[in-house]
Amino acid sequence: MAETKWPGCAGGLKAVVLDMCGVLYDSEPGRTVAIPGSVEAVNRLMSSDLQLRFCTNETQSSRDKFVAMLQTAGFDISVSQIFAPAPAAVAVLNERGLRPHLLVHDGVLSEFDSVDKTDPNCVVIGDAAEKFSYQNLNDAFRVLTGLEKPLLFSLGQGRYYKETNGLSLDVGVYMKALEYACDLKAEVIGKPSPRFFQSVLNDMGLQPHEVLMIGDDLVNDVGGAQNCGMKGIQVRTGKYRPSDEKHLTVTADGTVDNLSQAVDMILSQRGG
Amino acid sequence: MAETKWPGCAGGLKAVVLDMCGVLYDSEPGRTVAIPGSVEAVNRLMSSDLQLRFCTNETQSSRDKFVAMLQTAGFDISVSQIFAPAPAAVAVLNERGLRPHLLVHDGVLSEFDSVDKTDPNCVVIGDAAEKFSYQNLNDAFRVLTGLEKPLLFSLGQGRYYKETNGLSLDVGVYMKALEYACDLKAEVIGKPSPRFFQSVLNDMGLQPHEVLMIGDDLVNDVGGAQNCGMKGIQVRTGKYRPSDEKHLTVTADGTVDNLSQAVDMILSQRGG
Repeated sequence: MAETKWPGCAGGLKAVVLDMCGVLYDSEPGRTVAIPGSVEAVNRLMSSDLQLRFCTNETQSSRDKFVAMLQTAGFDISVSQIFAPAPAAVAVLNERGLRPHLLVHDGVLSEFDSVDKTDPNCVVIGDAAEKFSYQNLNDAFRVLTGLEKPLLFSLGQGRYYKETNGLSLDVGVYMKALEYACDLKAEVIGKPSPRFFQSVLNDMGLQPHEVLMIGDDLVNDVGGAQNCGMKGIQVRTGKYRPSDEKHLTVTADGTVDNLSQAVDMILSQRGG
Repeated sequence: MAETKWPGCAGGLKAVVLDMCGVLYDSEPGRTVAIPGSVEAVNRLMSSDLQLRFCTNETQSSRDKFVAMLQTAGFDISVSQIFAPAPAAVAVLNERGLRPHLLVHDGVLSEFDSVDKTDPNCVVIGDAAEKFSYQNLNDAFRVLTGLEKPLLFSLGQGRYYKETNGLSLDVGVYMKALEYACDLKAEVIGKPSPRFFQSVLNDMGLQPHEVLMIGDDLVNDVGGAQNCGMKGIQVRTGKYRPSDEKHLTVTADGTVDNLSQAVDMILSQRGG
């Protein structure tokens, strides 16, 4: 077992923010499998005096469906605890009076029910998977080229994710495709955008140094949180790779085998 | 009519290289329409003592089918005069002992008939249009991530092209997508790659300063040829835009209304 690195992250801690896929569970086609010990670890955090939020770049389902799916895997989490790119995008669209052309997964469409989508003046892409057909990408491209000021929002910027049958292309790849086609820079909504982490802090009414982020993605979870002044812990589950511990630009504040071990460390340091 | 700029490009000229789409013809769904005067202009060049080659980034059909299509539009051109990315790629693959996974248009597949495609050790993408499905792009991505040294060849790097029903995404967009997904840099085969222009020069046995390139694409045709030491003329047909004449990095050696006018200038300067 690799060495646990934990230089006293839990001092003055008031809240924990958890990434979901790869920390709580692994995804298999058609089902969600809890990572051993993670259901109990979440319950222990909930029973503590720490605030708890979940921060995901999941854009294949609405939070309602997501919570239901998590329940079948044993997690008892409420919609209000979950921060995801789609509702964050809706907030941005409303704030700036924008009407999106959507290229997103069918599962997440209901999050955009309240948004005016007529005569679009921007494009929003999410992890649309099979919906990333040539026709659909071309349609999004034509909307962008038809705008005086082309405006593209991307729900995350991941390169790929792991499924049991292999790696699958994530939304960032199609963001880069449209950026090149239209010669523009997309606005990323979701991790590692500082605005996204800040919205979680605002919701809890806390300062960054009072909050610890735990994730399996070194750049988007750990690096993103650190850029906002939070501490960032990486777990050796999900998309973790040993090379992460020698990364050139991001160094986690701690590295542990899994969520269960992280919660052990946090609660024992607090005498909990 | 805009001003003709023609600072004596034809001095010492021994050959002309023509781009095809946007110079000879415009593409409409299901048919090819000759640009007025271009059939006759090609015939006049053929009757002169100048060598003539055609240099295209067309990767939706084999040269055989391409020549047949051009014939219906009135052009009498032979396969041996046409330089296109697919046969150039075949030469590279043979030279380096590479076995490609192909993500190309069905129409161009026959150009790769002679190539061993078992147990692929590289990926070749062309303008696959509707074949750029999520599944197919993911398959190409998985081949690349499975290689010790991922190697991607792109048949061109265009952003988009114009069809009568609007703009359509070109191969360069998908090249950028895979570059980001795999954190690599593709090798571009076709214009504006210097290697591609050099193969045309080699075929004619000429030095760059003896050859004039005529195209509608300022960066890929004109700039690419100039980078090899050839002169580059832009026509105001096809994808030409007035802003090209104020481009920051590429300045054509001459700008004319169309191919017919270019050939007038060339032949009159030569006393032809």
